[in-house]
Amino acid sequence: MVHRCDILVIGGGALGLASAHYLKASHPKLDILLIDRMPGAGQGNTAKSAAMIRNTFSSQTNLALTDSTIDFFIEVERSGFPLGLELMGYLWLMTEGQAKANNAAIAQMRNHQIPLRLLDGDDLRAVPQLRTSFSADDPEAAVMGLEGITLGLFGPKCGAIEPDRLVQYYEQRFLAAGGRVRYGAAVASLLLEPSGGAVGLPGEPLVWQDKRITGAKLADGSAIMAQTVVLCTGTWANQLLDPLGVDCHMKPKTRQLFSIPASEGSLAQLLHTRGFNDLQVVPFLILPRSGIYVKPVARERHFWIGCSDGLGRAYALEDDPQAEEGFFNYSLSPVLSAYLPQFAGQRPDRMWAGQYAYSTIDRNPFVFAEAGALVATGDSGSGIMKADAIGRMVAALYDYEILGEKAADHVELFNGRTLPVDCLSLTNRSVQPERFVI
Amino acid sequence: MVHRCDILVIGGGALGLASAHYLKASHPKLDILLIDRMPGAGQGNTAKSAAMIRNTFSSQTNLALTDSTIDFFIEVERSGFPLGLELMGYLWLMTEGQAKANNAAIAQMRNHQIPLRLLDGDDLRAVPQLRTSFSADDPEAAVMGLEGITLGLFGPKCGAIEPDRLVQYYEQRFLAAGGRVRYGAAVASLLLEPSGGAVGLPGEPLVWQDKRITGAKLADGSAIMAQTVVLCTGTWANQLLDPLGVDCHMKPKTRQLFSIPASEGSLAQLLHTRGFNDLQVVPFLILPRSGIYVKPVARERHFWIGCSDGLGRAYALEDDPQAEEGFFNYSLSPVLSAYLPQFAGQRPDRMWAGQYAYSTIDRNPFVFAEAGALVATGDSGSGIMKADAIGRMVAALYDYEILGEKAADHVELFNGRTLPVDCLSLTNRSVQPERFVI
Repeated sequence: MVHRCDILVIGGGALGLASAHYLKASHPKLDILLIDRMPGAGQGNTAKSAAMIRNTFSSQTNLALTDSTIDFFIEVERSGFPLGLELMGYLWLMTEGQAKANNAAIAQMRNHQIPLRLLDGDDLRAVPQLRTSFSADDPEAAVMGLEGITLGLFGPKCGAIEPDRLVQYYEQRFLAAGGRVRYGAAVASLLLEPSGGAVGLPGEPLVWQDKRITGAKLADGSAIMAQTVVLCTGTWANQLLDPLGVDCHMKPKTRQLFSIPASEGSLAQLLHTRGFNDLQVVPFLILPRSGIYVKPVARERHFWIGCSDGLGRAYALEDDPQAEEGFFNYSLSPVLSAYLPQFAGQRPDRMWAGQYAYSTIDRNPFVFAEAGALVATGDSGSGIMKADAIGRMVAALYDYEILGEKAADHVELFNGRTLPVDCLSLTNRSVQPERFVI
Repeated sequence: MVHRCDILVIGGGALGLASAHYLKASHPKLDILLIDRMPGAGQGNTAKSAAMIRNTFSSQTNLALTDSTIDFFIEVERSGFPLGLELMGYLWLMTEGQAKANNAAIAQMRNHQIPLRLLDGDDLRAVPQLRTSFSADDPEAAVMGLEGITLGLFGPKCGAIEPDRLVQYYEQRFLAAGGRVRYGAAVASLLLEPSGGAVGLPGEPLVWQDKRITGAKLADGSAIMAQTVVLCTGTWANQLLDPLGVDCHMKPKTRQLFSIPASEGSLAQLLHTRGFNDLQVVPFLILPRSGIYVKPVARERHFWIGCSDGLGRAYALEDDPQAEEGFFNYSLSPVLSAYLPQFAGQRPDRMWAGQYAYSTIDRNPFVFAEAGALVATGDSGSGIMKADAIGRMVAALYDYEILGEKAADHVELFNGRTLPVDCLSLTNRSVQPERFVI
């Protein structure tokens, strides 16, 4: 069976739904269909995300993408649609070496007018029990290479959002405008066909034929043909694009989250730390070792613990990645308890894993046109915090690359900032290197 | 069983053997072991290559890598070691649009003093039966989108080499200097271990441990431990690096070659075209559609036909890729016979396929240090023509990154040119974009 539509958006995560919404908003008469293999919106890696958002980037590209997205989230909540937005702030805890290495990045962020506060050792006493120094003969600190904390960098316009609310927001608007969604529809492959039509030879499209992506074949054997296909398939992008010889510069990597109860005692006290925000909640804490972080989830009275593990964590696509309790016990807990002793002996009551779509070139997404299709992926765990900007960029790229409106060479983001519409493509990539990395 | 060596070079193709040779030449006292899973040197994709070499690049990086390598090959032959070097020249056949698009690149190549000759329609009559125009009502040309040829670009310092001779050259010198080789040794995985030694916890190396690549586990269960591991594994690099979370920015793609007999008649006449080179052989011809090329193999009295197929040819690792006769019949033959009618109806008497290690960012190799190891891959089909330069670069990068000789920040190539030693790394990549693409 063959279905037809004008635009087929594959992937109902944050990027897919934001893209579908903005495409429909600019082209209300087009028949736009969004499909996803899960039974509902945002149930892939979007649902498994730590769902943290921040605007603290030294790169102007990153800043524009995230700051405009956060401004948009604030506006959506103001308009009466709750997104679970909690701007409790991010607090990076840095060793002397890290503080020095990030000096230039901090100056750059200040230049960009990003609100920031620098905290010294005295200020950091506001975080209960936080250890900011280790004695020279502390054997555990020595073996783990832990150093004292000399600087805290606090970003107030940072925090958390509820991903399911976010995808519901875009989905409701998309549906209200007449967009169509179909869940439980898994794509088996993309269709690549001769642009000029088939000539009846075996093996088409042949080398000398111009080619375009004309639709998708589903796992149930049916097909959906579209004027334009938009791929927002996150970590699954390679599975669909590699067979066509299109590289989207993304590798999937599993990231785990561990949830620790904090309803009483010293962990509850830490959770309800005052002085950083109106929520009277401890900020999102980033420890100075291995990117280990502590997310306060006040409504659940829990902390979520995770880390950005680099070397040693495989790039590999997994449909159903699992968290490993041993990873918490041996990799995260020792560092966590060294800096925040109230976590000593605590074990997760819930854990899960999702996958990051890693843009391994510059940690920025790829948004580009290829063979008549649009691709947005490689958001490396910042898909939610860039979702609104990327959605607008996909819609603008449709006008620019697919409709050929060459005057539309910039995308206007929510707060009036603009970016070159193809600045996240491979060919015209213009992404400032991100210097704030910890 | 555990073997030990100072440097373990994995991969006995052109890049691996050149690297092993230059490492041994600079560090004669080190115990250097090269291993490969094939039963001898250069039997992987090196053996399946079209083995063409050229210095016609607009990018200075590409020019330095290839020109110095070709100069070195010339010098090796002069010294009495035959490499099967045949500089019959490359002749690019361009449509008006291609000639225009390559105008700036041609000017750049002239600036770099690359020997070049531009040929017009009259000059091109030197190539027997070459069709340089199609009548407007030629239905086949129309359906294939074929256009006339208005410009020929001839590069005389371009040609072919015999890859088995090349690897033998480096292997003999490496062995003579006391290097060791072991063939038939397939690597199952790389060993990643805590730099400071294991502490006895499950799951090491843990997130908070610094890590380095310390050796390789072989398919037979044995292990080889090394101070430094050098990966020259071409298309197999991802299999070894992805599990460690290291990206080498390479994707494998199959390329096919079809061999057509040319011992008599009009094909023999084409093969022995005079006027382009001292060999009195037709140059390597690149047709203006789909990168279809015609390699004269005079000693075999054959032509080898291939093409650079982009969109539609999957990125996928294949251990034993096969050529498809239908690909020749429907994708290559129609275009080939349209421009060179003497190929009409000809069928290959031999065909084979190998894989390119595609650097999808800028078509230049990646040569970098990571986790104490060195990696050279992603040569995108130019491994042979860059082999000598990359071998020297790997040896220089060993001094710079592994031994920490920060003064050795440039590599000296054969003809005295220098390049920044890390110019093919990801972090300090400085590769001029290549503008000569057809």
